[in-house]
Amino acid sequence: MAKLLQSRHSRKLVNLDRLEAVLGVENVDALVASSPENVTYASGYWALSQWIRRGPQTYVVIPRKGPERSTVVASTALLDLLADQNVWVSNVRRFGYFQMDRAERLRSGLDKKLLSFFGLPDDGTPLEALAKALIDAGVARGRIALDELGLLPGNWERLQDLLPNATLVPGYGLFRKIRAIKTTEEINRLRYSAQVAEQSIQVAVAEARTDITEIEMARAFHRKTVESDCQPVLGCIGFGARSAMPNVQPSDARLVDGDIIRFDVGGRFKHYRSDIARIAVFGEPSAKIKLYHRALHRGVQAALEMIKPGVKAADVFARAVDVTRKEGITHFLRSHVGHGIGIDGYDLPDLTPISPDLIEEGMVMCVEAPYYETGWGGLQVEDTVVVHADGIETFMTTDGSLMVPP
Amino acid sequence: MAKLLQSRHSRKLVNLDRLEAVLGVENVDALVASSPENVTYASGYWALSQWIRRGPQTYVVIPRKGPERSTVVASTALLDLLADQNVWVSNVRRFGYFQMDRAERLRSGLDKKLLSFFGLPDDGTPLEALAKALIDAGVARGRIALDELGLLPGNWERLQDLLPNATLVPGYGLFRKIRAIKTTEEINRLRYSAQVAEQSIQVAVAEARTDITEIEMARAFHRKTVESDCQPVLGCIGFGARSAMPNVQPSDARLVDGDIIRFDVGGRFKHYRSDIARIAVFGEPSAKIKLYHRALHRGVQAALEMIKPGVKAADVFARAVDVTRKEGITHFLRSHVGHGIGIDGYDLPDLTPISPDLIEEGMVMCVEAPYYETGWGGLQVEDTVVVHADGIETFMTTDGSLMVPP
Repeated sequence: MAKLLQSRHSRKLVNLDRLEAVLGVENVDALVASSPENVTYASGYWALSQWIRRGPQTYVVIPRKGPERSTVVASTALLDLLADQNVWVSNVRRFGYFQMDRAERLRSGLDKKLLSFFGLPDDGTPLEALAKALIDAGVARGRIALDELGLLPGNWERLQDLLPNATLVPGYGLFRKIRAIKTTEEINRLRYSAQVAEQSIQVAVAEARTDITEIEMARAFHRKTVESDCQPVLGCIGFGARSAMPNVQPSDARLVDGDIIRFDVGGRFKHYRSDIARIAVFGEPSAKIKLYHRALHRGVQAALEMIKPGVKAADVFARAVDVTRKEGITHFLRSHVGHGIGIDGYDLPDLTPISPDLIEEGMVMCVEAPYYETGWGGLQVEDTVVVHADGIETFMTTDGSLMVPP
Repeated sequence: MAKLLQSRHSRKLVNLDRLEAVLGVENVDALVASSPENVTYASGYWALSQWIRRGPQTYVVIPRKGPERSTVVASTALLDLLADQNVWVSNVRRFGYFQMDRAERLRSGLDKKLLSFFGLPDDGTPLEALAKALIDAGVARGRIALDELGLLPGNWERLQDLLPNATLVPGYGLFRKIRAIKTTEEINRLRYSAQVAEQSIQVAVAEARTDITEIEMARAFHRKTVESDCQPVLGCIGFGARSAMPNVQPSDARLVDGDIIRFDVGGRFKHYRSDIARIAVFGEPSAKIKLYHRALHRGVQAALEMIKPGVKAADVFARAVDVTRKEGITHFLRSHVGHGIGIDGYDLPDLTPISPDLIEEGMVMCVEAPYYETGWGGLQVEDTVVVHADGIETFMTTDGSLMVPP
């Protein structure tokens, strides 16, 4: 194994303090990332194939004693991205064959770095390479927390066969705990991602006209998203009674006077998710729409007002539901009023009635109050905010009021 | 379990003749889809959460004797999409809780259908619901091929505990065999998806100007893609020496005179992938670029000319490599010259030297000849075609020649 990468910047995604604390509490000797989100989070390495398909394997091994000695275990076919990206992990192992030619003279540092990766030995299968990285890390007899979400069936057992003296425990939950508290780089990406979603809604609403279809409005939404260098992910846009479908996908349904337009949408910016919701009404909103939307809006506002470090997530849930009921949706029922967001769309905390989570500084979360009435319509307010020592900073530039296009 | 869905159309994705043949050969009593691609392929059901995250479970159970009695096993939170989409599977089981309200009077058939789904019993966990569907299908003591790619670690064992008399065998490979031969609906989606990728390249190339960045050109590419109702997936766009990186991701690198611009790109249209490659040169192409690109282009053309039912995939590989060498890249080496494409980016056949696959009518495939020379640049021609009884029909409207923007 060669140490080839130099830390090029301090803009790490991973929260190393939090990682150290969580690994200490759980008493594990190493943590292994396997799912795309955790691989990128732990190393900065975005390994294309595992993001767009199921099956391709990439790992990051993080030793508790010395996360600066972490190792990326990468497919040879994806070493180019490892050389080109801002990866802060210092060790590399590669597996598999990929044909690259080389010019007689290499000019750039990037090219030299890539070729040096190709000069590493081929470590065989992905799991054999992972086992070697764990042996190098000195944890072959240790307690290893293995992110189970990116593994293929049978991989767990095969790794155990390769490391018969290791104790393997599930690691995905540990990553969720670590990821709950965002670093500055993550917060900056999440803020931009949320604001692009918000701007894309505004661009889409400006297209509202009689007989426009949901698909046509969605086109305007996604165009703004990609023009802002974000990737479309979630695009629930529904008109009228269709807005009551929680996951409504744009159809040929046409906009008519008085329709609710519900947006529950978001993309990815540099892999970081957004998820916000806004409601517009085409024409004059009915009294029921106004009353119910105001109730949801107040419910979200009440939740946001109480969020600060130390508050119980379950209390935030109770407050949002209580206010929404008192303000006009007397029968309002929900299983949650929000969730953390990060490189995955559902991070901790969970804002549910039975959530054990406490709000902490550095959490980024979506706070939402949706209402779905089949046969009538759906309404929703969902904001994204970051928790500071003294309360929240919202990422939103609009306040969640009903939007009424001209 | 209730039988609630009616077949609304004949535009199935799944190839039922092929399914019957493959299940017969493998002697399995039922096939279970678990990965997003196979769930949508087998049923038409696109269950949002499992597509954008890892973990959420959805299944389709297909009994060999009577695929018309297939069952979708869906999260209650995603029943709206099951009601709204063109799903041809006739049985439904649901699991989990989700709060929906209902208006006093339901007007639309869609709303009534959705409410009838909510009226089904909650079958508990995803695996409990799956086990019930398999028992209903009469295969609790049978041989069940289980698509392993969408399962979480431990799911296989838990299903075996729930069905102790069943024989579970891996099913992902069976789905790949079935999916290799496309239905008319699939071919139509794949053709459109490929042509949108091609048009998006043309729009992007038209932006070529001194000092434009890769990211700026990628924006134009993705804008055309989303305006055409496709989802961006693969966007490798690189200038100059960066074009030698197989997976190059757009950066702030600027275009200069003489640069290669390499596109290896594609999106999704109605979930169906595209993956094509074209090369442009900004300014006058060097003699080496012209010679090497022509060699690759001839290699692909030679491969395309020989593709018809009954031909060995390995022979297609040999021919493409041979012609590319003879035409000017004498040291040309590759591990494959293409692959099938469908709802996944890599379907059968594999065009490799050791491929056991035979070309069959109805296959859709990407035929490609890429050349990556670190320190110099990368060139690539990749077309997508469908195999008919007498040869190929190309999806491309451009012939893969070097593009030279004005």
